Amino acid sequence: MLNLLTVFNFLGIMAFSISGSLKAFEKKLDLLGVFVLGFSTALAGGIMRDVLLGVYPPTNISNVYYPIFALLGSAITIVFYSYIRNFNNALLIADAIGLGTFTATGAEIGLDHRLNIVGVALVASITAVGGGAVRDLLSNEIPIVLRRDFYATPTIIGGLIFPPLVSLLGIGPSTLSVFILVTTLRLIALFKKWELPKVGYRH
Amino acid sequence: MLNLLTVFNFLGIMAFSISGSLKAFEKKLDLLGVFVLGFSTALAGGIMRDVLLGVYPPTNISNVYYPIFALLGSAITIVFYSYIRNFNNALLIADAIGLGTFTATGAEIGLDHRLNIVGVALVASITAVGGGAVRDLLSNEIPIVLRRDFYATPTIIGGLIFPPLVSLLGIGPSTLSVFILVTTLRLIALFKKWELPKVGYRH
Amino acid sequence: MLNLLTVFNFLGIMAFSISGSLKAFEKKLDLLGVFVLGFSTALAGGIMRDVLLGVYPPTNISNVYYPIFALLGSAITIVFYSYIRNFNNALLIADAIGLGTFTATGAEIGLDHRLNIVGVALVASITAVGGGAVRDLLSNEIPIVLRRDFYATPTIIGGLIFPPLVSLLGIGPSTLSVFILVTTLRLIALFKKWELPKVGYRH
Repeated sequence: MLNLLTVFNFLGIMAFSISGSLKAFEKKLDLLGVFVLGFSTALAGGIMRDVLLGVYPPTNISNVYYPIFALLGSAITIVFYSYIRNFNNALLIADAIGLGTFTATGAEIGLDHRLNIVGVALVASITAVGGGAVRDLLSNEIPIVLRRDFYATPTIIGGLIFPPLVSLLGIGPSTLSVFILVTTLRLIALFKKWELPKVGYRH
Repeated sequence: MLNLLTVFNFLGIMAFSISGSLKAFEKKLDLLGVFVLGFSTALAGGIMRDVLLGVYPPTNISNVYYPIFALLGSAITIVFYSYIRNFNNALLIADAIGLGTFTATGAEIGLDHRLNIVGVALVASITAVGGGAVRDLLSNEIPIVLRRDFYATPTIIGGLIFPPLVSLLGIGPSTLSVFILVTTLRLIALFKKWELPKVGYRH
Repeated sequence: MLNLLTVFNFLGIMAFSISGSLKAFEKKLDLLGVFVLGFSTALAGGIMRDVLLGVYPPTNISNVYYPIFALLGSAITIVFYSYIRNFNNALLIADAIGLGTFTATGAEIGLDHRLNIVGVALVASITAVGGGAVRDLLSNEIPIVLRRDFYATPTIIGGLIFPPLVSLLGIGPSTLSVFILVTTLRLIALFKKWELPKVGYRH
């Protein structure tokens, strides 16, 4: 089961990296910008988590495979840009798998550092959506995660249920359950077009 | 006296969180955006300070009461949004109290980590105004603190006088003095409409 | 040779600080904004590097001379603003020297922390261009380094060749070589108007 999460982790890194690289195309950045946005979208969330928890150097830098897969995602986007937009649904599914994986591993590492339940939910969510927020900040936009979509909400739910789940089931099954829950919630949200209520008007 | 600062700290967290939550309304974000901007405005300054000083995990995450009060500020803003704008002066006063408290505690922690006087002023100021800067960055705006108002200046003054004050009076009275000085300067600035000179034109 | 790099380091800090301070003028910030942008442009890259590597407190804060030279750069910009724009070429050369110095010292510190080659290139580049990216983010712009110019590319090349160079020549000569390489590449790029290819259109 852990091997499955490892595979999903690399799949998620590539999906996130492609999403960042596509943003660089949208913003007409240069080649370096494509690699930086891909890298940041895929790895900045985990780097933020490690910086908050005091893990040095962050795993996403010290483990050479993570950067390589992120750079690979950008290279794929550059080479196959004309075709990649036809795989929108495949990308959204891979992104949902990445969201679930990053939430589960983030929650596990947070609990490992003896955070309280709010802290676990926070670092799980930052691991999963922090990279996308950095992508949007570097693109001079309000992070999309704050504006619409049921995207960060599954990661917060996953983070909040992880600590009680661990005391019931142990680490391994809880990590897998959170992964399944977050990915499933995200996929349902995508196909049902769930959104959180907007604010900003009298209500 | 320390108990007083603890109360002021929670008051400041709620005032800062309400200011962030109101910004989320202004920017028409969704519900999650309200909580994220409230949380960031209230707690990101202290988190940055702890990241710079190597305090892991940051107190604003490991102490569960700080996030809870920040989330409470957002909840209050959502429920009482129609009324809260009538309490503008009360909010500005609470914000000034938060500014003083965060500066004083930030300076104390900085000195505790044996920073030089410039470093103490820096972390005191980051503790107090860093959250508001994150709020503005997430809202896709130039941080207001860089553009106008006599807002960060009192925090820098407070941070610069803290180390010499401690060698005269000891920690407790110095912390209280810095709190009083910063809050008073900020309130005078508010009512006298003090601003730093602008640049950008021939002068 | 190390003394030379120390001199170049201070020259780079002042050049970077002046570049940030000029941006604050362009954006019509207030006096505080000038100092904050100057400080961030000169020192935020090194602070990010130290945060990623777990160096506490970051050298750019704990060593009082670095902040002082950064603040001096802002003060010079404020006093000599009318004249400083006539020294554009001098500033670009000083900036290129800063770029080379920051890359070389960043690579050295990264290798010192036993990073792999990708990690060394990453922290070398962040040290050199991270401050400019913070300057642009605080100015509500897409970091220029992602959009055009052959600016970050020399720092990545310098970071990538540093580890193999060290195993051939040892630390001292490698640091000097990387400095010379990066600064020379940047100066050639400036005068030849090299740019990376843009993306965002069918290609």
